[in-house]
Amino acid sequence: MTQDLKSRIIGLVGHDLEQVEHALEAHLSPNLDLVRQIASHLLFSGGKRLRPLLMIHSARMCGYVNGFEIAFSTLFEYLHAATLLHDDVVDEASKRRGKDTAHSKWSVPKVVLTGDFLLARALDIASQTDLPGIIRVIANITQEMSQGEIDQMTQKGNVNLTEAQYLKVIERKTAVLIQGACQSGAILAGVSPEKEKALKDYGYHLGMAFQMADDLLDYTASAEVLGKNPGADIREGKLTLPLIKALESAGEKDRTFMTHMIENESLDDAQFEALKDLLFRYNGIDYTKERAAYHVTSAKNCLDGFEDSTSRQVLTLLADYSISRNV
Amino acid sequence: MTQDLKSRIIGLVGHDLEQVEHALEAHLSPNLDLVRQIASHLLFSGGKRLRPLLMIHSARMCGYVNGFEIAFSTLFEYLHAATLLHDDVVDEASKRRGKDTAHSKWSVPKVVLTGDFLLARALDIASQTDLPGIIRVIANITQEMSQGEIDQMTQKGNVNLTEAQYLKVIERKTAVLIQGACQSGAILAGVSPEKEKALKDYGYHLGMAFQMADDLLDYTASAEVLGKNPGADIREGKLTLPLIKALESAGEKDRTFMTHMIENESLDDAQFEALKDLLFRYNGIDYTKERAAYHVTSAKNCLDGFEDSTSRQVLTLLADYSISRNV
Repeated sequence: MTQDLKSRIIGLVGHDLEQVEHALEAHLSPNLDLVRQIASHLLFSGGKRLRPLLMIHSARMCGYVNGFEIAFSTLFEYLHAATLLHDDVVDEASKRRGKDTAHSKWSVPKVVLTGDFLLARALDIASQTDLPGIIRVIANITQEMSQGEIDQMTQKGNVNLTEAQYLKVIERKTAVLIQGACQSGAILAGVSPEKEKALKDYGYHLGMAFQMADDLLDYTASAEVLGKNPGADIREGKLTLPLIKALESAGEKDRTFMTHMIENESLDDAQFEALKDLLFRYNGIDYTKERAAYHVTSAKNCLDGFEDSTSRQVLTLLADYSISRNV
Repeated sequence: MTQDLKSRIIGLVGHDLEQVEHALEAHLSPNLDLVRQIASHLLFSGGKRLRPLLMIHSARMCGYVNGFEIAFSTLFEYLHAATLLHDDVVDEASKRRGKDTAHSKWSVPKVVLTGDFLLARALDIASQTDLPGIIRVIANITQEMSQGEIDQMTQKGNVNLTEAQYLKVIERKTAVLIQGACQSGAILAGVSPEKEKALKDYGYHLGMAFQMADDLLDYTASAEVLGKNPGADIREGKLTLPLIKALESAGEKDRTFMTHMIENESLDDAQFEALKDLLFRYNGIDYTKERAAYHVTSAKNCLDGFEDSTSRQVLTLLADYSISRNV
C-alpha cells in the first residue's frame, strides 16, 4: 500500500522533485564552501521535499501559472533544514536519516551558524516574492517554531504532560511550517481569503498527522527503517501521544513502571520492548493512529471546495502518505 | 571629551531611548517566560541602543513623521541581541558587559533557541512595516552576518590574515547591520534612491569605525571598562587590525614572537602586555585609530546632502561617538 501510494505520488511530482533539487543546489552555490558542505550534508540526505511540494501544488491548485513556484518553494526546505540543524544540536542527536548528524561531524558552533545562514537564505527567497503576506507567514513560523522547541525542551521528563500540551508542542514545532508552506502557495496564487483559509487548515491537519505518525514510528519502526535507533524520544525525555495516552489509561503499577522508564537515563532494549508492550496494551498506539487518521480525513475535507486537478490529487495523496510512510 | 559627547547625545535622544526601552519590553512580554528571561538577561544589560537610534534618526532626518519609527527600530536591537547570543555560544565567551554570558547561566541549547526566537521577533516586526525593501535589507543582513561569523571562525588562528580579509569580516559581522538600520530608516521615510544610498554609506562607514574602535579597546581598555578581560580576541585566535598591521611591519624576530603569542592558548598577562607594546611600536594601534577616524569622517561626509536638523546632529554625534566611547 505505501509503496503503491509512493509511486503514484512520484508519478505525478517526479519532474517537480527534479526541479526542486536543482533549485536547492543553485541557491546554495555562490556561498562559502564550509556552509555549503554542512548545509548539503543535511539537505541532500534523502529528504522527501514534502514542504516544497506542498507549496508548489497549493499554488497550482489555486490557479498559479507564473512559474516561480519551484524557486520560491525551496525556502520551506531551507527553513526546515535550518530548524533540523538547530534541533539536532539542542537534542544532542547523533544520527538523522541513517547518517551522522552535522554537529557530530563538524562542531556545534559551525552547525549553529549554518542553521542561521539557511534561515537567512529562506528569508531572502521569501523577500523575493515581494508579498508581505508570505513574509508575515514566515515570521510567524519562525517565532512559533523556536517557542515550540523551547517549550518541548522545558517539558522534557515531565510525566504529567497532557494531550493538550503535546498538541500545542507539535503544532508549533511541525504543523506551523507545513501549514505555512500551503498557505504561502495560496498567497502566491492570490486566492480568496476563504480558499487561503482552507489551505491553511489543510496544512495544519496534515502537519499534525505527520508528526503523530513520526511519533508512532519512534516506537514501532526498526532502526534500519528509521535511520536511527527507535526510542529516541523517550530516551530524551520527550513524551509523545502514544505514551501520554498509555500513562492516562494504565493502572497504578504499570504507570509507575512507565514513569521509571521515562526517568531511566540508560533504558536498555528489553526495557524499551516492555514499555512498548504497555503502549499497545493501554491503547496508546491505536489511539495515536486514530487521531492521525482523523487529521488526514480533516485535511482532505479541506480540499472539497477546490476543483479537481492534478495538484488537488497530489495534495490528497500527500495527506494519505503522511501517515502511511515508513520513514 | 567622551563624557561631553555622551551627554550631548543623551540630551538629544534621551526621550527616544526611554521609548525604545518600553518598546523592547512590550514586544517581548506575551512570550514564554524562559525566553523572556534569557533574552532580557542580554537585552537589558546596558546596551547603548545604537542601532535603534540610527534607524529612528535616519528616518526622521529623511522627513519621516508617522510615529512608527520607535516600534520598528526595536527590530535592529532584537537582531543584534540574537547574533550576540549565538556569537557568545560560538566563541564560548564567559562574560559580556560585565555579566556572565547567557549560555554560562542557562544551557547552550536554550540560548541557541532564544537567539532563534529573537531573530524571528525581529523578522515579525520587519514584516509589520509592509515594506518589501526593508525585508530585503533584513534578509541580506542575516545572510551576511552568518557568513561573516563562519568566515571569522574558519580564519581563527590564521596568522596570515590580510587587512582586506579583516575588512570583509568586520563589514559582514558588524557594518552590515548598522548600515541596514540606517538604510531601513531611509526606506521607511520613502526618500530618493540617492539619499537612501547616502544613508547606507553613512551606516557602512560608521559600522566599520565602530568595529575598529571595538577591536582597539580589546587591547587598550581595562577589564573594568570593558566588562570582560582585555585580550579576548587574541586568546580566541581572532586577528584584528592592530595585530595584522603590527605583524606586517615587524621584523623577523618580533613577528615570530607575535606568531607564538597567537598560537599560545594560555597567554598570561605579562605576555599580553609584551604583545601590546609591539602593537604600539609597530604602528598597529595608531594605524587602526587612523583608519577608524577615516571612516568617521567619511560617515559624516555622507550627511552633507541633508538639511540641518536635530536628527542630522544626532547622526553626526553618533559618528564621533563610535570611536570615542570607552565601552
